[in-house]
Amino acid sequence: MSGVDTADGEPGGVVYLVGSGPGDPDLMTVKARRLVDEADVVLHDKLPGPEILDLIPEERREDVGKRAGGEWTPQEYTNRRMVELAREGKRIVRLKGGDPFVFGRGGEEMEHLAEHEVAFEVVPGLSSAVAGPGVAGIPLTHRDFASSVSFVTGHEDPTKEESAVDWEALAATGGTLVVLMGVGKLPEYVAALRGGGMAPETPVAMVERATWPDQRVVTGTLDTIVDLRDREGIEPPAITVIGEVAATRERVKAFLREGGDEDG
Amino acid sequence: MSGVDTADGEPGGVVYLVGSGPGDPDLMTVKARRLVDEADVVLHDKLPGPEILDLIPEERREDVGKRAGGEWTPQEYTNRRMVELAREGKRIVRLKGGDPFVFGRGGEEMEHLAEHEVAFEVVPGLSSAVAGPGVAGIPLTHRDFASSVSFVTGHEDPTKEESAVDWEALAATGGTLVVLMGVGKLPEYVAALRGGGMAPETPVAMVERATWPDQRVVTGTLDTIVDLRDREGIEPPAITVIGEVAATRERVKAFLREGGDEDG
Repeated sequence: MSGVDTADGEPGGVVYLVGSGPGDPDLMTVKARRLVDEADVVLHDKLPGPEILDLIPEERREDVGKRAGGEWTPQEYTNRRMVELAREGKRIVRLKGGDPFVFGRGGEEMEHLAEHEVAFEVVPGLSSAVAGPGVAGIPLTHRDFASSVSFVTGHEDPTKEESAVDWEALAATGGTLVVLMGVGKLPEYVAALRGGGMAPETPVAMVERATWPDQRVVTGTLDTIVDLRDREGIEPPAITVIGEVAATRERVKAFLREGGDEDG
Repeated sequence: MSGVDTADGEPGGVVYLVGSGPGDPDLMTVKARRLVDEADVVLHDKLPGPEILDLIPEERREDVGKRAGGEWTPQEYTNRRMVELAREGKRIVRLKGGDPFVFGRGGEEMEHLAEHEVAFEVVPGLSSAVAGPGVAGIPLTHRDFASSVSFVTGHEDPTKEESAVDWEALAATGGTLVVLMGVGKLPEYVAALRGGGMAPETPVAMVERATWPDQRVVTGTLDTIVDLRDREGIEPPAITVIGEVAATRERVKAFLREGGDEDG
């Protein structure tokens, strides 16, 4: 497939920063599916999930999560490889789980491309922060009890001197909170939210492997969710939804059709 | 097309609450496109946008935003019509702009279906809150300066006695803010964020008609954005992105390919 022409007449490749969505191939966008089908090379890690990666012939994909080999970090290797392939005139898809710009480090990859004068396009994808609650029957906002929704990482950069996440301020918004990568540190942020004044009976849901065939959902409260996580053995990847909206699922689930298993 | 069988052997329809994404048909999910193609009836309003609505033959779609006719509100009419068609055994797509559960009142529609014992499935879509910044080269989170992102409506329910949105708490999160439906009340929430301690030089971007062929983006600061909105004549629908990430666009846009027009 052809690359684009740069201003000086030399052929230059293009990088598509593409979100693959939460894992179900049917929840990829039409554009993502087409770009993956037409790309010369798809650079990926494990996050898009097996069902999506299996759609791509092995000879057209490279697992950049694996190739660093000690000389570079996976992120450095990915950045370097994107530029290298673009300079060969290739049409490259950098496939990222969820959306490239929601805790995906796509922003850093985009800036690297611009610094190296590589043309790129961003193709948003469904973040599991939106899709996970959705398929589980949990609205993120509600006219009566959630005028905002905040997405936050439960696994922040440990090299930072002070916590980058202000859980008290998030509690104070009064809106829905969706925590990504928040299985391991659930006890810590539950305590922080309690300390921020959030009521112990606040509904909480965890959606494990959202939209995957073996999706599971557990629902409880701020007071019970840590025990529920342990009892049901909830493991990453999972998202945590905190707020009144999380109680909706129990009211509707008798009529909710979903791909995955029912509650554990 | 056939409905599903309910437990008592009577045929029952099913309602798919489907997000159509931000307006570009290529940014619909594969599943949304298929369901729209296969539905007996697509119930919609204007929000999916003309490019998507034009994909659906007129005989298979109903504009529920228009049909209320004084006897019901459009929301009451929509709720009633979904149940009515489901009881006829139809396969119904309730097509909603963006994602059904991000300021889409999909939660209320879902609860209405469950109360009336109608089977339903939720098919998430790309919210313009994610897709708009994305195609404009604005990451929602960034390892160095945005550990959370909050979506909020700039057009809250005026019947509420106290403001449902706590702008001071949102400012205090230190994360990215994305305001939907926030063109008209921009001066009010800019003032509230300033009052909450947000710096006047905080970068702000507005993305008008995100992903539509005539998309426009303006970038400024909390101090300049109201004047920019007025000078450029930014009109709904548009989303507002507030936070350090909004400055990214200017650094990368020379190499960013996008569908719409360049900055006004």
